[in-house]
This record gives sequence, structure tokens and C-alpha cells, in this order.
Amino acid sequence: MRLKSGLFATAALAVMLPGVARADEGMWTFDAFPAARMKQAYGWAPDQAWLDKTRAAAVRLTGGCSASFVSDMGLILTNHHCVATCVEENSTGSNNILVTGFTARTPGEEKKCAGQQAEVVTSIRDVTAAVKGAIGTASGAAAVAARNAAAARLEAEGCTDKATTRCQVVSLYGGGQYKLYTYRKYSDVRLVWAPEAQAAQFGGDPDNFNFPRYSMDASFLRAYENGKPVTTPAFLKWNPRAPQDGEATFVVGNPGSTQRLLTMDQLAFQREVALPISLTTQSELRGRLISAMKESPEKAREGAETLSGLENGLKVTIGRVKALNDPAFTARLAAAEADLKRRSAGNAAIGDPWSAISAATVAQRNSHIERSFATPSSQLFGYALALVRAASERQKPDAERLPGFSTSALPLLEKSVTDERPITPWIEQLRMEWSLSKAREYLGADHPQTKLLLGRESPEALSARLVSGTRLGDASVRKALWDGGAAAVAASTDPLIVYARSIDANARALQKRYDAEVDAPLISARAKLADARFAAYGDSNYPDATFTLRISYGKVQGWTEAGRPVPTRTVLGGTFDRATGAEPFDLPKAFVANQARIDKNVTYDFVTTNDIIGGNSGSPVIDKAGTVIGAAFDGNIHSLGGNYGYDGTLNRTVVVSTAAVQEALEKIYPAPNLVAELRGRRR
Amino acid sequence: MRLKSGLFATAALAVMLPGVARADEGMWTFDAFPAARMKQAYGWAPDQAWLDKTRAAAVRLTGGCSASFVSDMGLILTNHHCVATCVEENSTGSNNILVTGFTARTPGEEKKCAGQQAEVVTSIRDVTAAVKGAIGTASGAAAVAARNAAAARLEAEGCTDKATTRCQVVSLYGGGQYKLYTYRKYSDVRLVWAPEAQAAQFGGDPDNFNFPRYSMDASFLRAYENGKPVTTPAFLKWNPRAPQDGEATFVVGNPGSTQRLLTMDQLAFQREVALPISLTTQSELRGRLISAMKESPEKAREGAETLSGLENGLKVTIGRVKALNDPAFTARLAAAEADLKRRSAGNAAIGDPWSAISAATVAQRNSHIERSFATPSSQLFGYALALVRAASERQKPDAERLPGFSTSALPLLEKSVTDERPITPWIEQLRMEWSLSKAREYLGADHPQTKLLLGRESPEALSARLVSGTRLGDASVRKALWDGGAAAVAASTDPLIVYARSIDANARALQKRYDAEVDAPLISARAKLADARFAAYGDSNYPDATFTLRISYGKVQGWTEAGRPVPTRTVLGGTFDRATGAEPFDLPKAFVANQARIDKNVTYDFVTTNDIIGGNSGSPVIDKAGTVIGAAFDGNIHSLGGNYGYDGTLNRTVVVSTAAVQEALEKIYPAPNLVAELRGRRR
Repeated sequence: MRLKSGLFATAALAVMLPGVARADEGMWTFDAFPAARMKQAYGWAPDQAWLDKTRAAAVRLTGGCSASFVSDMGLILTNHHCVATCVEENSTGSNNILVTGFTARTPGEEKKCAGQQAEVVTSIRDVTAAVKGAIGTASGAAAVAARNAAAARLEAEGCTDKATTRCQVVSLYGGGQYKLYTYRKYSDVRLVWAPEAQAAQFGGDPDNFNFPRYSMDASFLRAYENGKPVTTPAFLKWNPRAPQDGEATFVVGNPGSTQRLLTMDQLAFQREVALPISLTTQSELRGRLISAMKESPEKAREGAETLSGLENGLKVTIGRVKALNDPAFTARLAAAEADLKRRSAGNAAIGDPWSAISAATVAQRNSHIERSFATPSSQLFGYALALVRAASERQKPDAERLPGFSTSALPLLEKSVTDERPITPWIEQLRMEWSLSKAREYLGADHPQTKLLLGRESPEALSARLVSGTRLGDASVRKALWDGGAAAVAASTDPLIVYARSIDANARALQKRYDAEVDAPLISARAKLADARFAAYGDSNYPDATFTLRISYGKVQGWTEAGRPVPTRTVLGGTFDRATGAEPFDLPKAFVANQARIDKNVTYDFVTTNDIIGGNSGSPVIDKAGTVIGAAFDGNIHSLGGNYGYDGTLNRTVVVSTAAVQEALEKIYPAPNLVAELRGRRR
Repeated sequence: MRLKSGLFATAALAVMLPGVARADEGMWTFDAFPAARMKQAYGWAPDQAWLDKTRAAAVRLTGGCSASFVSDMGLILTNHHCVATCVEENSTGSNNILVTGFTARTPGEEKKCAGQQAEVVTSIRDVTAAVKGAIGTASGAAAVAARNAAAARLEAEGCTDKATTRCQVVSLYGGGQYKLYTYRKYSDVRLVWAPEAQAAQFGGDPDNFNFPRYSMDASFLRAYENGKPVTTPAFLKWNPRAPQDGEATFVVGNPGSTQRLLTMDQLAFQREVALPISLTTQSELRGRLISAMKESPEKAREGAETLSGLENGLKVTIGRVKALNDPAFTARLAAAEADLKRRSAGNAAIGDPWSAISAATVAQRNSHIERSFATPSSQLFGYALALVRAASERQKPDAERLPGFSTSALPLLEKSVTDERPITPWIEQLRMEWSLSKAREYLGADHPQTKLLLGRESPEALSARLVSGTRLGDASVRKALWDGGAAAVAASTDPLIVYARSIDANARALQKRYDAEVDAPLISARAKLADARFAAYGDSNYPDATFTLRISYGKVQGWTEAGRPVPTRTVLGGTFDRATGAEPFDLPKAFVANQARIDKNVTYDFVTTNDIIGGNSGSPVIDKAGTVIGAAFDGNIHSLGGNYGYDGTLNRTVVVSTAAVQEALEKIYPAPNLVAELRGRRR
């Protein structure tokens, strides 16, 4: 695990500008690959044809992951943890394919993944002038509205074929650039192969973000259209070989979000306010879930994926807290800021964006708790709020809608709301109880927002009433409300719809205040910071991650931990040595059954210096020849500070090798048709 | 709730030296009350007779609270939350006195409180020369051992009558002073009166550390000896009247621990390392407990007190995190440090203790995780480790024993180990699982200490084996092992004893390393800091809290919160307005039943500027006449930063008034005999 991004819906406009990239640092856009720089360091760099071919095979999964086509029949390589929810949702009590693993012997057996969409970039167009022109001299909430309206218009104009294309305006370099990304989209994605969860998750949370590692975190999907596998002539050649120490590697994927050029004031807000609250509340949720799952084997099964995602996110938070509480780490960031200030001194066109950001950060501090606890956390409530808001927003012209409800964004929203998907009521209840009780704790019992959220009910009683009373778990009910629009939503007596209606105005008001007091000042200040950075350092910069396609170059290399060298790779046989028999270090059943046949010396997982972050999960790891030799599935513990800055001596990408996946496909979870397809032989 | 100290066992030697006390700041020792300073501010100050009389009536409870005698028959006033564990342990399924409240109609009905001991200071002797002489020029672990040995010797010599006296050497001003406290102790303490838990805990965790408040957090105990109530001629006169705005108040009690003169390096260790780990792990435990308690009404009842204590402690941690992440707050502390450095510059006798402390703090950072996760958390395991260690330590001369196992400390330890006390196995299991899984998480699966703690078992399986297999829940089994000493413990096959034996050496080694690398350098450096502070600021200082008797002066006064004035007091009738019917804002049953009779205008809770901290729970709040007008039971949210510094504009003590308790004794939870006794009429 687990570099899945939790941010896909909101990442597009959340940006920051990096400093001068060093060593293998950088999540580069395909139109600005630093070929000269790489050539200097590695004696070789890819040419345009290599880049074009690779880009065309790169896939973004709307679940928050990356992937790649590895055959011309729409076959997609990604991580197991990127499809685990799909595997779980396709499991039943009697046929738990999350536990057993899954191999579709024929296309007919391939299983639909709810809410999943595969997307391939087909063009990138610079729309900076259009967006900046629309913003003009507007300030406050008007500037935010103008920016959003321009983006909505450009997206609508760019994608007239809504069935197969998606358009997204992305703000890069903190508003220094705006680009219109066009994607070919595949809305029907199906599960082809998944190993046992225990093979993917061996070592569980204790080993997550650690190395050495023994994880088969790989899986295959297939893109469909009109009920048939799609044809994908642009794909990466499958190359099941061991990596060589020091060889160059490329990671091509969609890093979700980095915050590498937050100012020191913004970092202080993270360290002093936002992160401690996350740490505290998420840890409590983890504890609530762990205990609830002990009540029965069913609950243990039903909660597993939620817990895994939660623990992954919590570890990310813990890593960030650690990084921002490391004086040496923050001193480097402070030095970088001081350097930029020095170089920008006296430049009237730049002025003092740091002070403007500082003022916005004060406003952010003041509204953080109210914004954090504006709505309860639950999938069912998420449906309710999306339905209530969509009903209202769809009545407005594009330019006046909330972001996420523009014409270009609606198809994916509709899919995510109306796709059939199992709901686990006790998890809904647990999450809602937790989030409402945290709202009361942080706001205080006397705060008007607490009274709005709870009335005279307790978090427990309110959650029970809403979860047990709602019918939104039924996809057809959601579909009817979506199709019925404003009239249907207004007439609904579903308790969750009623509740969402009652608290939406306050949440919108908080957002509006945030737009005016925080987002708007940042639009102009960050654009100025971007200008300052380009003036000071030229174009040896890359934009912060935005869950859009990037390429990172690096090499196969271990690191040194507390004076001790950490090896570059593990081998399959190491799994047997590490297993204790006790969860989560119990051997996968198929490993036990096939122990004699498995080649113990096959490279299992390996590490590289590539600069990645959450959202890169499932990214192909590509060699100089352009063939795929692994799938990135994790970073080491030092990669978590990578949110704020890349440290090439420590930060590592963790990869499952194609060699190990090949061994699994041949001997552990046999899939002869898949092996043939990967070899380029038609079935 | 909840200013109970969790630190009584270890607080005696944990000290720091304060800066110049301002306004009502200060937790003063009785031998250094700043009468002139108070007189200047208030136009009046208590004389020596007032101080002596008050001191003689002040009671320390070994459960971590403060209290006072309020009749000549050993009657003790304290908080409900200080006796809640006793009330719960005396409850049964059919007679849940925690829920119903409790009134002993005769002395014969008064109920023993396991592990509870009442202590009254009878003398304080300066032993600085003896301890410093014993340390001499020793350094490293030898200095720690010499200090501990000297303390053990002085305590043993000071208290020859172990049945009725207790001696404790306390380090004040960071080792600038050592004092030998002698106590008259009462080992048999019984419950006399407690209101419904819901009356004491109204508002629950949401209202904890907040104000306005509606809490009957009061209770009465009685000290016994030889099966009879003891005679206590020194007691405070009960004065059930409303406080007057602005009137002077004294809080006399045992603040557990403050850290007001940690250096900036030590504060950074707290903020950057220690507190985030506490926040994360304690929050998860909270969540685990909350979910487990939902499984059945029995579990809800059985877990209530554990959860309440945990949430209280967590809120303290959250408050500390907030304080240390408040740049304005830490800037004041930094300025104070800078001022002291400036005033000490060039003083060769002082040198640079800050650098020595900084170096010790580096060592502390490096060993913090190992020390934090050296042993599992569980009451049963605590018994096992105490038995294993006592067996070994008792064979050594006093001077060579671990602190806490000296001759003077053994009687209370024996009492706490051998007192009968109900054990809740599922809570034991839950805590142990949690703490062992956190050990693995923070140390990593490959750390030798993880392997020592877990072997090849999972945290879950190991905990289940130990908790289900041990017989240490039976007090007679513990008594036999205690009496049997080293031979019995060595021969025991009880799985928890076996386990404690197996991990004790590592825990001891960690402690030894800590003594040498952290504690020893601090002994001399902090003594030098104390010298620096006295040289710079004279004696307008008070020692950091050490769970020893202190007196604070202040006044009845509200404060301003976010521009809004917070009133000085609440009235009983406010409870009915605040109640929502939903837990924890549901009305106590007896409030409902007696609503018509209750005088709604009686002062319920009030706030004062007194400077207190955890351990002060139950402290009498005394007026100029020396009569008791309330019991301190909490601080406001700003008081949590009081661990590091007192802010007189915001920091408030929260008190339940004697007027409200009197109303309760007369109309809500009637106790006519108690009313008579408080009025000075013999039964």
C-alpha cells in the first residue's frame, strides 16, 4: 500500500509552486520534461517519441490511483489496494474473493467496479490568458467565482462529447498557469485478476510505508465500452525481469497533491492547527473501527477495507507531523523561503505576497474548526448532500455553480452517486456518530453550529435515526432523486435528504467566507510567488502535484537508515522467512500451497529514488526501453515528508516487480490467458 | 471533573523552577507564602495561625486528589470524580450506586475505598545539604543512584512508625532544594456520600474543562483507624454560602505536576515528539473503548470510569498541544528564557546549564519511543511487574533499590497491590492489545524490543493468552506472591508473572540508560538553573508542582472569551435550562424528582483566578475567614496551558460551591446526619 490519493475531486485547483529541483526531485509535466538535466545526470534522456508513447499508455483511475495499459485489449495494470474496494464489493459471504483472490478465466467473468473510471490524457492546452483575463482585477469571493466560472466555461466548450471525453482546467504553479486537460474516458472498468488480499497486504499496517517489504500489491483491470473490451493500441510492453541496481527508472502517474511551497506561515498552520486535529480525530475513528470489527467475523470482513484506508491515511498524517516537527527539515524549507525573499527584494512587480498569504492564513486559522466540522462524515450523507446540491446547482448557469457541479463535472458526479454499491449500515452509523461527536467536542456544546448539527439529539441517537431511516442505500432511490431534480429533492421526506437540506446553507456560507477570506487572496499572492520563483530560478521548476499526469525520473537504489544500509530489493522467498503465523504476518494460503514451486530468488519488491506521492499508486515503473518493470505501490516512511519537500538521500518509491507478478500469474494465482495476453498473444 | 493527578507515584522528584510569579500566579509552599505580595494586591493576607490551621486540615488522597477535613470525626470533602472508581467498585448490577448516588445513613454503611489513603502533612524539614552531599561530584547513573539512595535513607530514618506515618523526600526547584515531608496517614478511607454520577458529570466530556458549568462534583469520605472513624480536631468550618464577586479565595491542595520552567529545548521535545505520540495513541484507545462499550449495557457501565479518566487525560494533552502550538504563548516563555540567560551571562558559577539540558534532551528524543513502549498497559500487568520487581528489590539494601521500592515506599505499594479490587477482563484485554499494537507500530515490526514483547504472537493473541490465563485478578493470589517474595515469584507459572519476568530486564536497562543520559545531567543543570533564577529574581518564585501541599491565592472572577464575558457563576436552576434530554445533557433523576423543591437561585459552580493544576481536584476553596466555600474540581480550557505557564487573564479554577452541596444534602440526595455533622452537631 498505499499511495492512493484521497483528493481526486478537489485537487485540480489546489496548487503550490516548487523551488529548485535537486537530484532526482520532480514531478514533471510531460510538456516540460527536463531532458537536458536528466541527460547530465544519467548520460541519457528519453526523446519526444518515447515520451509521447508512454503518455498515451498512462491511465488515471478516478478512485484516486494511477495505472497503465499493458495490452492492446484495454488491459490495465494497477495496485491491489486500488481495486480492493471493488474486490470487496464483488465478494459475498460464501465467495469472498478479497480473501481468496480472483482470476477471470474469460472476459465474461470480469467484474464491474462501481464508481471506477479510467482516463487517458489526449491533449493539454494552455488557457492561462483566458482564466487570468476572466479574473481581471476582481478580488474577494468575486475573484474565486470568476476563476471557477472561466474554468467551467472552458471545460464545457472543450468537451462536447460527454460520453467519451472529460475536460478539466488545472491550475499549475499556484495560478501562474492554467491548463485545459482533455481525457479519453472509459466509464466501465472491470476486475480481471487480483491476488489474495493477504499477499497484497502482507505485513499490514506495521509494514505500510516501510521497507524491506513483501507485498504482491498488483492487480489487473480492463476498460470496456458498449459491453466490450476497448482497443488500446498505445500500451506498455510487459517486461517481467528483475531491476538492476542503479538503472534509470521512470514513474508515470498522477501524484495527487503536494504542498512543497507553502510559505512558513502556511506550514505553521498545518503543524499547529490542522494536523494535530487530524491526528486526534482520525486516531479515535481508527480505535472505534478496530473495536467494532472485533464483534464478529462479518464485521471484521466488512470493515477491513475501511480500516486499511483509514490507517493508511493516518500514517500519512503521522509522517507529515513528524516531518514538520523535524527542525532540520523545516530549517531547509525556511532557508528556501528566505532565499527567494532575498532574490525578490526590491522587485515591485512581485511585492510582498508572503504578507498577503500570512493574512489569509490567519483567516484560515479562525475558520478551520467550523469548516472541518460543517457536515457529518458518511457515505450515505455524501449521497444526500450531492443530491441536494446537484438539484440546486443544476438550475443555475454553469458560471454560477459550485465547483464540482459544472456541466463538465456532472457526468462523473452522477456516476458516483448512482452507481450501485453496497452500503454497510453499521460503518455508516459509526462514522456519523464519530464525526458528530467530534463536531461537538471541537466546536463546543454551545456553538450555534453544534446546535444546527445536533438539535437536541445526541450524536448517537441522531445518527441512528438518519442511518436506519434513510433509503439512500438503494441506488434506484438515488437515481430517482437525481433524475427528479429540484422538485424531487424538495419533496423528499427521506431523513438524510431532510437533514442535508437543513445544514447545507451553513456549509455553503462557510465555503463562501473561505473563498473570500482565504482562497481569493491566495489566488493573486500565489501567482506572484510563482512569478518570483521563475524570476529567481528560471524554469528548473515543476508544479506541485494536482492529480494530473506527471513523469518522475530516478534510479533503483536503497538508502541508509540509522547508519544501516537498507537493501534495494527483496525476493519472494523472504516472505517465508518473515512470516510469523500471526496476523498480519501470516502467509497467504496460496504461498503455502505452492511453496515448493515458487522460485524463491525472484525479485519481489524494490525501491527507487523516484519522487512520488499519494495518487501515484499503481503507476507503471518504466525502464529506458519504455517497458514496464513494476508498479509503484508505496513510499518509504521518509516519503511522507515528501508532501513538503523531497530528500533524495532518504525518500524512496516502493515497487512490486513485474517479475514477481509474472511468477504469481504462472504459479501462485495461475492465469494462463492473462500470461498469454501480456506476452502479446491473442486469446 | 477533573483535576485528578495521574502522577502521584512519580511526581516527588520531578521538578522545575518557575519564573517571576505575576498577578495571582503561584502554587506556594506553606513555608514560603508570599504574604507581603498578597497584602499589596489584596490589602490583606493570612497570618501564620491561619496558615497553620489550614495546613493541618488539608488532606492528600493517594488516588491523585486533594481534600480537606470538614468535621472533627474524620469527615473529608473531595470531588465525586476522585471517588468515582470507589463508587463504581462498590456497585453491583442490582445496586448501581454510581448511577443512583449513595448516602450512608450510619457509619456502619460507609464503604471501603480500595487503594485509597488519606495523608496530612505534619512536618517539612530541609534536607538539601544531606542529599547534595550524598551526590557530591558523582555524575551519570551514579549521581541518580546517590540521590535516590540518600532519599531512601532519609525517608527510612524519618518514619520509624510505618503504620501511621509516611515520609517522602521531595526535590524542589529542580534539585535546588530537597525537603523531607512527613505525613500522618490513614490507610482506611470509606465512602460516606456521593450524588448520582450524572449530577457530577452533567455535560460529560463536552463540558469538561469548560464553563459555564453545572456539576455537583462533590463527595464525602471518612478516615478510619482500627475500624473506627478517626478524631480530627483540625478541620475547616463548613460554610454553605454563595461566593462574592471579587472576594479573595485560597485553594489548598496538591497540584500534581507542572513544567513551567522547561527550557525551550525541552518544550520542543514535548511539542515535537512526546505530545503528538500521546495524542495519537490515547485517541485510538479512546475510540477502542467507546466502541467496545456499545456492545452491551454491562460494558457501557463497566467502562464508564475508565473512559472518563481517559477522556480527561486526553483533553489535558490536547490543551497542552494547543498551548505549545500557540506562538504568542511560547513567545512569552522564550522571552523569559532569554531574560534569564541575559541576566546570568558571565556568571561562572552558573555557566551554561541550557546547553547541558539541550544535550540531555537529544538523548531523551533518541530513547523516547523505546521507553514509552517498554511494557504493556494493563492493571493486571501492573500488578505482575510490581510483584516481580518488589521480590527482587526487597532483597537489596535500601540504597540500591529502584525508586518506589524503598522501605518508606513499600507500605503504600503493598496496599495498592494487595487491596481487593474488581478487575474487568475485557478492559484489561483491550488495553493490553492496544498498547502492544502501538509498541509494534512505533518501534517497527523488526525492532528487537517488538520481538521481545510479542515473540511470534500477535498483540491480540498474546493479550488473550495472558489475561485469560492469569490469576492475578484474585487479591489473595497477589497477597501470597507478595508475602512469598522472590522464591514465590521465581516459582510462579502464572503467565503474567512469567511475561513480566521476561521483559523486566529490558525495561530496567532502558531506565538505567535514561538515568545516565537524561536524568543525571538534568540533576546538576537544573540545580544551576535554580541558582540562576534565585540570583536574577530573588525569592519571588515558587517551585514547580510535585503533588505536595501548596496554597494559591486569587479571587472570584470571570474572564473574556472571544470578546464575550464569561460569567463568574452558574445557579442550580440553570441545569434545567441546559438539559436537552440527550446524554450527556440528560437531567439527573433526583433533579427531576425534586425540581419543585430545589432553590433555582442557589450558586452552583463558580470560577476563580487561583492557579491550580491536575492533583488539585477536591481542594477546599477557602475564604479569608478560613471557612470552606467550595471544592475545586476543574480548570477552564485555558488552565491546560497552565502546565507551562499561568495566564491570569484567562486561566480559571472551576469550583462547586458549598451552597450547592448543602442544597443537595438537604433536598436532592438527603443526608440529614451529614448536614448535622457539618453544622458541628454530633450524631
